[in-house]
Amino acid sequence: MKNCIFCRIAAGEIPSATVYEDEKVRVILDLGPAARGHALVLPKRHYKDAVTMPKTLLGHVMKIGAKIGAAQMKAFGYDGFNLIQNNGEAAGQSVFHFHLHVIPRKTGDGVLGLWQPGSTTPEEMQETKERIAAAL
Amino acid sequence: MKNCIFCRIAAGEIPSATVYEDEKVRVILDLGPAARGHALVLPKRHYKDAVTMPKTLLGHVMKIGAKIGAAQMKAFGYDGFNLIQNNGEAAGQSVFHFHLHVIPRKTGDGVLGLWQPGSTTPEEMQETKERIAAAL
Repeated sequence: MKNCIFCRIAAGEIPSATVYEDEKVRVILDLGPAARGHALVLPKRHYKDAVTMPKTLLGHVMKIGAKIGAAQMKAFGYDGFNLIQNNGEAAGQSVFHFHLHVIPRKTGDGVLGLWQPGSTTPEEMQETKERIAAAL
Repeated sequence: MKNCIFCRIAAGEIPSATVYEDEKVRVILDLGPAARGHALVLPKRHYKDAVTMPKTLLGHVMKIGAKIGAAQMKAFGYDGFNLIQNNGEAAGQSVFHFHLHVIPRKTGDGVLGLWQPGSTTPEEMQETKERIAAAL
């Protein structure tokens, strides 16, 4: 897409710190890293989110993301990594070209808060389950 | 795996609030939801993390996760969703059977902190890129 910054980066029209590239994806370092090595997997074709992306490309993106996470661990002695993909502005998506964050983690680093576990009831779960299943 | 709780839930040996099921995955509601409808996509075969999981199954899990996210939006009027997959205890993984979190989001809900953008330098990025690429 003409005005999409991630299309232009993925195509190599805008320079980036490219960690890996193949015919389907480019992996770049995030300019505002949560931790050293924080990377983004960008498909070269434009899809705004995971809902619109084909299954085979989703699989490739995740597999490459996992390889990058393993390489972050090996290169810098990290203990694990998060794969995070945000859909919609409410979820923290700021560029509307699908991207998968690969965030390397060390024990106790406090880099990511994730969420506070909430509570529910069996009755609410039953209704929630039915409503989501009906919307599928 | 015999002593894996997610293997037993995925196989239906332990009851769960199942939102969706096919031959490869079971999708259940999280018992401590970050928000109403928070779901987990569990592959029926045991893999401890994304590194060890085959590409086609990763693609299927992500596609189903995206469908669940879209259904959460439709069912409850959410604005978006996060797909989150943690690898290793340091990354917040507590059950060592691969699972993908699907967390529905409303604008300004504050459900997920995500991360504080950090800073880096061109020189550091160059070195980081080389070290990760060399570890791939």
